[in-house]
Amino acid sequence: MHPLAQRVLDGDLRGAARVMRLIDDRAAGHVEILKDLFPHCGRAQLIGVTGTPGAGKSTLCDRLIDHYRKQGKKVGVVCVDPTSPFTGGAILGDRIRMQRHFLDDSVFIRSVATRGALGGLSRSATDVARVLDAYGCDVVLIETVGVGQDELDVTRTAHTTLVVVPPGGGDDVQANKAGILEIADVFVVNKADREGADAQVRHLESMIALGREIKAGSIKRPEGHVIHGAVPEPIAAPDDGSWSPPVLKTISAKGEGVPALCDAIEQHRAWLGTEQGRTRAARQAHDQLLAQFRDTLIEEALDTLGPQIDEAAASVGAKKIDPYSASEALIGTFRKR
Amino acid sequence: MHPLAQRVLDGDLRGAARVMRLIDDRAAGHVEILKDLFPHCGRAQLIGVTGTPGAGKSTLCDRLIDHYRKQGKKVGVVCVDPTSPFTGGAILGDRIRMQRHFLDDSVFIRSVATRGALGGLSRSATDVARVLDAYGCDVVLIETVGVGQDELDVTRTAHTTLVVVPPGGGDDVQANKAGILEIADVFVVNKADREGADAQVRHLESMIALGREIKAGSIKRPEGHVIHGAVPEPIAAPDDGSWSPPVLKTISAKGEGVPALCDAIEQHRAWLGTEQGRTRAARQAHDQLLAQFRDTLIEEALDTLGPQIDEAAASVGAKKIDPYSASEALIGTFRKR
Repeated sequence: MHPLAQRVLDGDLRGAARVMRLIDDRAAGHVEILKDLFPHCGRAQLIGVTGTPGAGKSTLCDRLIDHYRKQGKKVGVVCVDPTSPFTGGAILGDRIRMQRHFLDDSVFIRSVATRGALGGLSRSATDVARVLDAYGCDVVLIETVGVGQDELDVTRTAHTTLVVVPPGGGDDVQANKAGILEIADVFVVNKADREGADAQVRHLESMIALGREIKAGSIKRPEGHVIHGAVPEPIAAPDDGSWSPPVLKTISAKGEGVPALCDAIEQHRAWLGTEQGRTRAARQAHDQLLAQFRDTLIEEALDTLGPQIDEAAASVGAKKIDPYSASEALIGTFRKR
Repeated sequence: MHPLAQRVLDGDLRGAARVMRLIDDRAAGHVEILKDLFPHCGRAQLIGVTGTPGAGKSTLCDRLIDHYRKQGKKVGVVCVDPTSPFTGGAILGDRIRMQRHFLDDSVFIRSVATRGALGGLSRSATDVARVLDAYGCDVVLIETVGVGQDELDVTRTAHTTLVVVPPGGGDDVQANKAGILEIADVFVVNKADREGADAQVRHLESMIALGREIKAGSIKRPEGHVIHGAVPEPIAAPDDGSWSPPVLKTISAKGEGVPALCDAIEQHRAWLGTEQGRTRAARQAHDQLLAQFRDTLIEEALDTLGPQIDEAAASVGAKKIDPYSASEALIGTFRKR
């Protein structure tokens, strides 16, 4: 066992922080540590918190931390903060988020930011969550700043994913709804003391019901029809053992609705133990391995090919070769090497 | 030459539509057609239109189509619509967007949607833009619905990228600013008759100036300091030959500001012909080949390994092996096969 892995398992705070830095830097040897830690993972409850920017996710996370701390649980938070060299992203994130928990030794907050041209954000987040799990956190919150593909990927790591939206349901929620509907285990309409909260709840419930009907095949997926405005009456929640995301209202600034939200999280956790829940967990594990495989494959290919990719790009630029043939040639080289 | 490629080059509308369907379906043989078309690409001006949902991108695109049609140009539009099986995404997009141009034979509107677990959205969009280019479009607009990583990738295909934001500059713009600042060639504050337009312009200009200073090394990248609110006085635009994105106001519903926007697009196009502009184009071509290589590599790996990935996922699920070692083993198998 790697000495740093041992320190994580021993609950050594500085050791855990160091491993997370190695992950963030993709430093040599960090994978070996993760291999050592993996058999000790699986104890923590991983909760994803995503949704539209400005919905109040950070404040809600803050309340969830309070809730779990009151139960005596050790809480980890992974802030997923896609960023650029410009803002200094993760550093900024660490400083301004959830400041009041910084003095609490049982709350461990860590930001991850995108590194490199090839993303890898969700991989870092998954790895950091695993470290927090092995370190002994009972609950790990994985908070994202937006609802892009990176964030959707990240929530695949979570057992239960909360999708937080503000009241109203303007264009921004519309635009993101497709992806959101598929990843939400629990919907949270936050800032529910503002206008449009009930309208948002009804809207989401209609979307959920419609999605269920389409899945069940009772109505066909629309082709060439605008489906907004054609939402049917909500139908009863499924009694077939599947999970239908509840839609809850919270006012996280005041803590209202948070206990009910935590109840819903527990119900979902219980559902994950049912037959259908286990099927979903297996699918998630499969997707996660696929993502891991994909990222590692690309990293290895780039390491192997190095400057040959630059040469190929120059040839494509000079129109000596098309990019499709150039890619095929590079793959051939990588596989034979 | 593939007969369908020939039909595209001959300006055959049905032929072009058929090729785009093959691309969307990742049907066998579509890559061969793209190889045939590539030498004939490079004539069209590709303009990316991205920005926060609700900023009025579609209306703005509509106005841009008008503008270029009045110049007698043939216009293609690629709508990038990340979606799910649930909404039927691309189909919906085609129907509701820019309807009044449907009867104009010189406007070709096509949506692309995410397919499969591994994304590939930006690849489809790039491929479709290439078909429109080879088909004879003078201008191709690439419109995205959001500002996630997928959309950022897509705009790498464009010669000039417009980032459209609403007035105000609330949380949503804040959150996305990092990525936005790097891809914007021209900022557009749309709906400029609403409150907060000038504030948004000033805000963006300050961010641009700050970014420039950090790049120039005159101020250090902040570490551990919150940079919002610490924005310095805007400095003069660079006279070192680099491009600094102008910030323009438009009211696309009324067409106001659109001519000035088109002027800015032309200025940027002219800049692309300068030494620094060519450097940027080369970097972009490099990134594009890298993306192409990455996507093709993954596709080939999945085809090659097939059920072995499922078996590995099951082993990881049963904790017989950790996901890191499982990925490494799969890559080894792929390379030796």
